[in-house]
Amino acid sequence: MTAGEPTGAAVVTGGAGAIGAFLCRALAGPNREIRVVDNLSAGDRTSLKELEGAGRLRLHVLDLVQEKDLGPVFAGASEVWHLAANTDIRRGTADPRIDFEAGSVATFHVLEAARRADVAKVFFASSSVVYGFPTVFPTPEGYGPLLPESHYGAAKLAGEALLSAHCHSYGMKGYIFRFANIIGPGMTHGVMFDFFEKLKRDPSRLEVLGDGRQSKSYLRVEDCVDGMLLAGRKAQETVNVYNLGTRERTSVREIAEAVVASTGGRARIEYTGGERGWTGDIPQQLLSIDRIMALGWTPRWAGPAAVEQTIRELAQERGFSPR
Amino acid sequence: MTAGEPTGAAVVTGGAGAIGAFLCRALAGPNREIRVVDNLSAGDRTSLKELEGAGRLRLHVLDLVQEKDLGPVFAGASEVWHLAANTDIRRGTADPRIDFEAGSVATFHVLEAARRADVAKVFFASSSVVYGFPTVFPTPEGYGPLLPESHYGAAKLAGEALLSAHCHSYGMKGYIFRFANIIGPGMTHGVMFDFFEKLKRDPSRLEVLGDGRQSKSYLRVEDCVDGMLLAGRKAQETVNVYNLGTRERTSVREIAEAVVASTGGRARIEYTGGERGWTGDIPQQLLSIDRIMALGWTPRWAGPAAVEQTIRELAQERGFSPR
Repeated sequence: MTAGEPTGAAVVTGGAGAIGAFLCRALAGPNREIRVVDNLSAGDRTSLKELEGAGRLRLHVLDLVQEKDLGPVFAGASEVWHLAANTDIRRGTADPRIDFEAGSVATFHVLEAARRADVAKVFFASSSVVYGFPTVFPTPEGYGPLLPESHYGAAKLAGEALLSAHCHSYGMKGYIFRFANIIGPGMTHGVMFDFFEKLKRDPSRLEVLGDGRQSKSYLRVEDCVDGMLLAGRKAQETVNVYNLGTRERTSVREIAEAVVASTGGRARIEYTGGERGWTGDIPQQLLSIDRIMALGWTPRWAGPAAVEQTIRELAQERGFSPR
Repeated sequence: MTAGEPTGAAVVTGGAGAIGAFLCRALAGPNREIRVVDNLSAGDRTSLKELEGAGRLRLHVLDLVQEKDLGPVFAGASEVWHLAANTDIRRGTADPRIDFEAGSVATFHVLEAARRADVAKVFFASSSVVYGFPTVFPTPEGYGPLLPESHYGAAKLAGEALLSAHCHSYGMKGYIFRFANIIGPGMTHGVMFDFFEKLKRDPSRLEVLGDGRQSKSYLRVEDCVDGMLLAGRKAQETVNVYNLGTRERTSVREIAEAVVASTGGRARIEYTGGERGWTGDIPQQLLSIDRIMALGWTPRWAGPAAVEQTIRELAQERGFSPR
């Protein structure tokens, strides 16, 4: 495709979320229309204001669990990026209907709308949690059996399965990205966000769920978006599955200490104990990224640098003075 | 447990189907109450008449897509066998809502009912189709990534994922059985059944979808039920995954020729051509059964003998004179 050639519209579900906002900026161009579908339950409209103002993006405030309004939004689109999901894994354990609806049902509706609109490519934000608690680290895409421990993980695996069936049945191409923990500015959930929230409420102490030895890999949102775009250009199987993460792990203890240091270092860190932070928490996560690197991608931010930068940004966002 | 000790009730969804009827007979005992949930869309009540008449089984004619009536059926049950599903894979390609509802939604309702009733064990009839078209034969349980090609397969993988999340979240034990083609008397679908139906309509010719080289493993229903019961007694992980099949493959051509021979041998066999019989058909299937055999199970019927016996039974059921 030559520069300046018009391209089909891109639908981005969950486009007002922290990853979605970066993705929309990366996708937006003079000849590309971006249509965001977001119920704004976790997303933030202000992150899209600039693109909206420039007439390059239109936000449709819709709930994907209700299917009826999707037709016009998907009409004429050439690709769909399905990022929308429940963002609170723990809440899904208390009420599994949350992930079933925001995950399985919403994904089914997105895929059906994509099928009816004859969309060529569907990109799906899956997660490392589809692996459950794996016995192999770093975990490759071919690992099995896939036994997710949370309903969030079940919904992601169900979404992968639905996408695969749609691609094989109706000729669309599918891209499944199994994310490590994606971090960056504008986050509304995750361990770093939670720590800052707690310190905002009580700067004298930081309660940490588990023993602090949970250890996972963290990937910057910019690298995540780059990886997805690269795979979309280069991978041509009917269904393409890629892990996205870094080669390094950071422990919850390291994160807690860095967050406390970034806020002045006065808080006492208290661990609730136990291997897992909560029911459904996978305490160890490290994805093999050989497959996506073979396409020519490499994370610009290594894990520890990504964590450090994000904590710096969050401290500023949350109004803590820089250390 | 000593003989004569009362055991909790067993709920069997799809219990009026061909596998369900065998399972119910195997589970029934003087101290065990069997509660079948079946919408009779494919199942046949007559197969349960004897147990019903003896007061050992109660049939609840319910649709699992409607959740509201399940509470009383599940109350006091100690185990649930979830076999109900859409039985027509091809119909699911024409309308993916069929498998989404009869598969994902129904399974979610069954698991929620089991959770509320504090059921200890949930057994789930999954399928070799969760593997999609694998690159490894015989395919082990650890094969991945799991990219099902049909909506039937997507619903089975989604069901596995939901069961896994429920088990890890709420303390129940889960048993996932990935079936080869299960065959035996009373079948209402599958390649052998279809061939007899076609010959009933036109005894002069048998149209075979594909080139006849599709080759899969076939397991007798009695062996399938034995394997599930054994795993239920012996396997004690939170979630237990077992393939169930035989070590042999039989081609569609061999089946077509044996069916025609069993009906007198007059029909001309016509192949429509192509590697796959239909969209979503997985032309090659052979499961590794090392894992279930390590528990002490072995199929009494090898694949070819299972096929031969089933064709003999079906010929009689369908009113063709024995060869």
